[in-house]
Amino acid sequence: MGFRPDAVAHSAEATSHDDVAARFARVRKLTLDLAAPLSDADASAQSMADASPAKWHMAHTTWFFESFVLRDHVPGYMPFDARWPFLFNSYYEAEGARIARPQRGLLTRPSLDEVRAYRAAVDARMEAVLTDLAPEVLALVDLGCHHEEQHQELLLTDLQHLFAQNPLDPAVYPPAPRPPGAVPEPVRWIEGATGAVEIGHGGEGFAFDCEGPRHVTWLQPHALADRLVTNAEWADFMADGGYETPSLWLADGWTFVRENAVAAPAFWRRDGAGAFTQRFGLDGLQDIDRAAPVRHVSYYEADAFARWAGARLPTEAEWESAAARLDPQRGTFLDAPVAVCPLPVRGGEGLRQMFGDVWEWTSSAYLAYPRFRPAEGAIGEYNGKFMSGQFVLRGGSCATPRGHVRATYRNFFYPHQRWQFTGLRLAKDL
Amino acid sequence: MGFRPDAVAHSAEATSHDDVAARFARVRKLTLDLAAPLSDADASAQSMADASPAKWHMAHTTWFFESFVLRDHVPGYMPFDARWPFLFNSYYEAEGARIARPQRGLLTRPSLDEVRAYRAAVDARMEAVLTDLAPEVLALVDLGCHHEEQHQELLLTDLQHLFAQNPLDPAVYPPAPRPPGAVPEPVRWIEGATGAVEIGHGGEGFAFDCEGPRHVTWLQPHALADRLVTNAEWADFMADGGYETPSLWLADGWTFVRENAVAAPAFWRRDGAGAFTQRFGLDGLQDIDRAAPVRHVSYYEADAFARWAGARLPTEAEWESAAARLDPQRGTFLDAPVAVCPLPVRGGEGLRQMFGDVWEWTSSAYLAYPRFRPAEGAIGEYNGKFMSGQFVLRGGSCATPRGHVRATYRNFFYPHQRWQFTGLRLAKDL
Amino acid sequence: MGFRPDAVAHSAEATSHDDVAARFARVRKLTLDLAAPLSDADASAQSMADASPAKWHMAHTTWFFESFVLRDHVPGYMPFDARWPFLFNSYYEAEGARIARPQRGLLTRPSLDEVRAYRAAVDARMEAVLTDLAPEVLALVDLGCHHEEQHQELLLTDLQHLFAQNPLDPAVYPPAPRPPGAVPEPVRWIEGATGAVEIGHGGEGFAFDCEGPRHVTWLQPHALADRLVTNAEWADFMADGGYETPSLWLADGWTFVRENAVAAPAFWRRDGAGAFTQRFGLDGLQDIDRAAPVRHVSYYEADAFARWAGARLPTEAEWESAAARLDPQRGTFLDAPVAVCPLPVRGGEGLRQMFGDVWEWTSSAYLAYPRFRPAEGAIGEYNGKFMSGQFVLRGGSCATPRGHVRATYRNFFYPHQRWQFTGLRLAKDL
Amino acid sequence: MGFRPDAVAHSAEATSHDDVAARFARVRKLTLDLAAPLSDADASAQSMADASPAKWHMAHTTWFFESFVLRDHVPGYMPFDARWPFLFNSYYEAEGARIARPQRGLLTRPSLDEVRAYRAAVDARMEAVLTDLAPEVLALVDLGCHHEEQHQELLLTDLQHLFAQNPLDPAVYPPAPRPPGAVPEPVRWIEGATGAVEIGHGGEGFAFDCEGPRHVTWLQPHALADRLVTNAEWADFMADGGYETPSLWLADGWTFVRENAVAAPAFWRRDGAGAFTQRFGLDGLQDIDRAAPVRHVSYYEADAFARWAGARLPTEAEWESAAARLDPQRGTFLDAPVAVCPLPVRGGEGLRQMFGDVWEWTSSAYLAYPRFRPAEGAIGEYNGKFMSGQFVLRGGSCATPRGHVRATYRNFFYPHQRWQFTGLRLAKDL
Repeated sequence: MGFRPDAVAHSAEATSHDDVAARFARVRKLTLDLAAPLSDADASAQSMADASPAKWHMAHTTWFFESFVLRDHVPGYMPFDARWPFLFNSYYEAEGARIARPQRGLLTRPSLDEVRAYRAAVDARMEAVLTDLAPEVLALVDLGCHHEEQHQELLLTDLQHLFAQNPLDPAVYPPAPRPPGAVPEPVRWIEGATGAVEIGHGGEGFAFDCEGPRHVTWLQPHALADRLVTNAEWADFMADGGYETPSLWLADGWTFVRENAVAAPAFWRRDGAGAFTQRFGLDGLQDIDRAAPVRHVSYYEADAFARWAGARLPTEAEWESAAARLDPQRGTFLDAPVAVCPLPVRGGEGLRQMFGDVWEWTSSAYLAYPRFRPAEGAIGEYNGKFMSGQFVLRGGSCATPRGHVRATYRNFFYPHQRWQFTGLRLAKDL
Repeated sequence: MGFRPDAVAHSAEATSHDDVAARFARVRKLTLDLAAPLSDADASAQSMADASPAKWHMAHTTWFFESFVLRDHVPGYMPFDARWPFLFNSYYEAEGARIARPQRGLLTRPSLDEVRAYRAAVDARMEAVLTDLAPEVLALVDLGCHHEEQHQELLLTDLQHLFAQNPLDPAVYPPAPRPPGAVPEPVRWIEGATGAVEIGHGGEGFAFDCEGPRHVTWLQPHALADRLVTNAEWADFMADGGYETPSLWLADGWTFVRENAVAAPAFWRRDGAGAFTQRFGLDGLQDIDRAAPVRHVSYYEADAFARWAGARLPTEAEWESAAARLDPQRGTFLDAPVAVCPLPVRGGEGLRQMFGDVWEWTSSAYLAYPRFRPAEGAIGEYNGKFMSGQFVLRGGSCATPRGHVRATYRNFFYPHQRWQFTGLRLAKDL
Repeated sequence: MGFRPDAVAHSAEATSHDDVAARFARVRKLTLDLAAPLSDADASAQSMADASPAKWHMAHTTWFFESFVLRDHVPGYMPFDARWPFLFNSYYEAEGARIARPQRGLLTRPSLDEVRAYRAAVDARMEAVLTDLAPEVLALVDLGCHHEEQHQELLLTDLQHLFAQNPLDPAVYPPAPRPPGAVPEPVRWIEGATGAVEIGHGGEGFAFDCEGPRHVTWLQPHALADRLVTNAEWADFMADGGYETPSLWLADGWTFVRENAVAAPAFWRRDGAGAFTQRFGLDGLQDIDRAAPVRHVSYYEADAFARWAGARLPTEAEWESAAARLDPQRGTFLDAPVAVCPLPVRGGEGLRQMFGDVWEWTSSAYLAYPRFRPAEGAIGEYNGKFMSGQFVLRGGSCATPRGHVRATYRNFFYPHQRWQFTGLRLAKDL
Repeated sequence: MGFRPDAVAHSAEATSHDDVAARFARVRKLTLDLAAPLSDADASAQSMADASPAKWHMAHTTWFFESFVLRDHVPGYMPFDARWPFLFNSYYEAEGARIARPQRGLLTRPSLDEVRAYRAAVDARMEAVLTDLAPEVLALVDLGCHHEEQHQELLLTDLQHLFAQNPLDPAVYPPAPRPPGAVPEPVRWIEGATGAVEIGHGGEGFAFDCEGPRHVTWLQPHALADRLVTNAEWADFMADGGYETPSLWLADGWTFVRENAVAAPAFWRRDGAGAFTQRFGLDGLQDIDRAAPVRHVSYYEADAFARWAGARLPTEAEWESAAARLDPQRGTFLDAPVAVCPLPVRGGEGLRQMFGDVWEWTSSAYLAYPRFRPAEGAIGEYNGKFMSGQFVLRGGSCATPRGHVRATYRNFFYPHQRWQFTGLRLAKDL
């Protein structure tokens, strides 16, 4: 994972054993709650190489605590099962060999119940030792909680992708409460800062290593849209031939849409008349909510839409500079095992929907900040080694656990990927 | 499936409602018994496109009775679930669209319990109507039983392939009883018939359409080995560089072994010293039984072995001509949910191991017999449409339900496939 | 290549040094004539892995004589270039490593002129030594001539495939003379022999090893169509939805047509209105001749057509039994560097178009005849190692050098291949 | 191509008709000189989808002038051949359909001579009209010259890749003169500018659209190595297990080296003892010059090397800021048809080898500068649509025509590509 050592120090200073214990309990419970409606089969299947089975997420997050806390820092700890690290290591080369990623869906054993027992055993031991851990180990527990929150989001999106392959269109969760929302008014443009600004994590509170160091960057005069792009606006793009107009697309994007016959956001479905009026989600097959933010679009699509709209995507620095003064806990986030869903923007002034709802594609490649240094050891593999070919997304989504994101938070995906809750906000030069 | 209409007539004549009802009950029960030790996840996973989930086999065989008996011949029958035929049709184009084969493993719903309920509901209805069915419909029930027996074997081999992907090496079933067996004596050669002989199914009892019509063919002077090739003999082939000697191989076979780094039968495993001393099976990881017949070899390997041995594979006519006078129910077959396993040959004279143990590759391509006609309708898609690119195997295996095979029975697989219980018997010219 | 040793003996007996010398000169000259209109680039390009550059055919056939005659049997022979065997060995494992087949099109050096010089040098040496060769070496020369004739046909079909990729639709050769031909009368059925018949090469004259040994086989009552299937009949099949009707197709064939969007024979082209009215050939883009035999169809298509027509394909034994009494030199064959083309059947009685025009797909898999033994050494790799997955074609084509085929001649291709001049004749049971 | 309109204005102002005519003549001649030693076959083959045949480069650059100058701006111009734009359009969607890129190597017609005739005809017409062209059309001619210079470099690298596939190891050109060079002294670090700096093209002279607009960016304290990384240093990296140490690699890079068995720069060859002592180049197979800059490494390799060396790659802004005060015409560039080759650094002070020798990978993704706008029309497809997934390279190479590059010049390739003359210079934080 690689978190910033100074951040850890700060974090440890500010965080008591009780706080970490409470957080640990809360995070671990949410994972179980999310898995509660799943059958053993639901939790074991893998619908593409990019996704993992729910059971695997449950075990992998447990392996993280078991390896980096119990094994490394609790003398005399005996592993739950010596053969399981091979199964549940994700990509840490320093941690040794592991099962090939596309094979994860063939692990029908251990069963979901056995994985639950694994969680219970590790949790019991963690709770027993937590109060005695040194600050730097307590920081690892905190890190493990952040890590598990990331996997909670993946668990939801991987389940949605899996269930979307099922012709029976099963819902994973009951619908989330959805307040009525009207198609919003046209975008208003909010001017951003210009000139030298500081971005990146500066040392207070937890952050992943790739969020820092804090550093100066230079912004050109620009403005951000006050809200996200909606499904209604996306439908206009489609109606205007957006998916059939090569001049709107990056070359790789045009290849992507043609080779995969992409004609709409992921999970959109045609009705009997051939029109895209429904979409599949964690709540099964539902009508498209025209007022809600568009979701499940790739970078290629977001970029093409922005070009069609005569605008562009924001850079990550523009986004962060504007977001820094907003409360990252406000927004539509994951709080409970329901079919999370981005919501229509509510009335008001200024920048809205910056946190939660959908991850916002930026035009920034995911690269190292100046003076970036990964953490030492296996944990240093968390972020840095993915710094090629991906783009940065900002702000979290409705499937992100509340409290997980920050203004400095950098998510990243390849430009063709679109099974996450990904959308966009427009930007323009001034 | 396509069975021979005249065979059906004969069969119906000879078979009472009670006989069919008893057979139906017995076959349906064995499938449930085979599935008993499986978790929902075990029953839902699919480890390659050639294989299907156990749950799918259980539902597909039920769909067969539901469609071709209840729906087609029982007025007023209401389908169990109108959406399920899309899920459980295998390859019958005449029965409409269906889920793509490699997607079967993503059907985590319906659950294993729901599939059991489906089976129970169809069985109940079948048993209620069975005594009133016309002879030609009764023949369809009989056909469905033969069909389900084929899927029982596939269920076992698909499970073995799935569990073989699991680094934990789990056993599917308890070991089958294995009497001690010594490495057998050298092969003795049994001379076969020469000149015009008749082969193929002639109308008595049940047979699949591709087994007939009965017809004359011409045999050259030849002999068959009195027993199957053993693991010990296969190890000799390997030790002699069999897998590294291109002159022993068909061109396609040589490509196959190089591209897939094939160096031993499927499921053989190297020990710590790099030697192939163990093999994975339905009973998990076990030592290789040198006295037992080799299993899980492809046609390419069987053909190369025969060339290495200075012999050849038998033709299907040679095999059938010799087998016609033997009892097809004697041998090592599937009787119960145990880890079936081919056994060392027992002492005795003459041809042994002709039925059961392992399917025997023949040098005959799977093609139509003279005057072959597939049955009418969807059922006609059962066999005929696979008549290109495959080779015939004869005799059944330890995973074939006892009573399922006949001397005329033609199994067929592509020359590279080897996850079935496939082995070989040598032949030579006289 | 592997030719039958006894055939060689017979052949050598019957064939004088002068005869072989004349044949050698004639064959070698035709290759040069065929290559005469080609540019260096034309002769170097490779349009698919199944095809080879013309230059490669010219050099490979020369390598054959250089290796198996000059190197092996002429003391003191110094190779033309020691590095070239690596380039021009086709698939003889016993002859050592060689360039990967799909890379042949990247050999821009040696140039076409250098390859011509290679041919000239080898020819000069061959002619110098020919009169002194022992009979068994003379037989190798004869074999090399037959080998080169096979490559002459491949050279034509590979060029046609290459030029078909060029949007300029260039013609390779001037059109062949084409007498006017009317769409023929409906097929008449010619009854074949029944019962035990002998087929296969029996020892007189040259034959490839796979044509023998001569042996008894058994024929059922049947009849063959008196002529080939025409383009007009094929158009009827298409108009009747032949390519869209799954019940007409083998399962593998149905997959093939869907995955490759096959809707007509290879090289057929749609006109502006979307109708298939033209075809590309060695003479460029021309109107489809409705009276001529259909060409460039795969086994899958031939088999589907026959099913649609209520008939079947002949077996190779049926075909050979009927062809044995006909003159294999009569028919439309390759005589000169023109754009060869199958011709409409001419009036007359009995079986026509058996030799020449198009290779006729049979329903027989390409497998070993009883007691087949490949020749010893590298030359034994010629035929036997291809005996899996392919079907037999009979009779030669308009691109086969006149005199090359015999009634016993067995050509073979995979069921999806269709860039050769392949067509069909119907058969039926009586 | 998309060049900056204001740049064009400036350029037109500064550039007389005579200057453009002289430049046009010089550029067009160099292409012919480069093609002079090629056979028709050499010029027609394509060794991978990323590369194009030399003939295609020659025709495509001609098509550019014919389409965007003669067709669009010379009334009454009749195209040389109306069917050729389909063949020689590269990727301009606005210019209509075109032959699929991997098919370019199958265009054996038109011949090399016909393409030369095409060039001669277009050149003659261009020269006839050049003096009458309006300034904005003259700017298009200038653009076409820059475009052709880019293709001259690709022509060389594509030929090198093609000839590298040939087991005969043919040289394309005679060796370039190579002054003796000693393995250089250890790197000295040259401190760069810090804080707000301006980069990007500002309007004087020609530039491609992606080089601008000029804009402020912010640099952190840093230093650049005074010279390029050498082959000797690369050999140290290899000897230290660089290619086998996952912690040095980006995740995608690690996948790349494993899947492609990458163990050395492209075109390095093992000697009989298994050591990498030779490399293939435009001058054929030669000993590796340990003193010369390493070439033909991918971004993944350059990044791993820098990590191994305890340094990093420079950003493009760092590089440009340092290069701005150097003469971009000094260095090892392409001047004539010889086997260009990067040279060992010569003694001296300060930054050396910044221009020429090898393209230098930077750590910057190839993305739009602030306020970037592509040109209007087909020409706007030149650069902007490639802005995803690629990294920026700076400084030109020994295969870049002298005078082609500038300090602001941005080249770009995917991180796995390495058939260009690509190398690296180290950077570090201060």
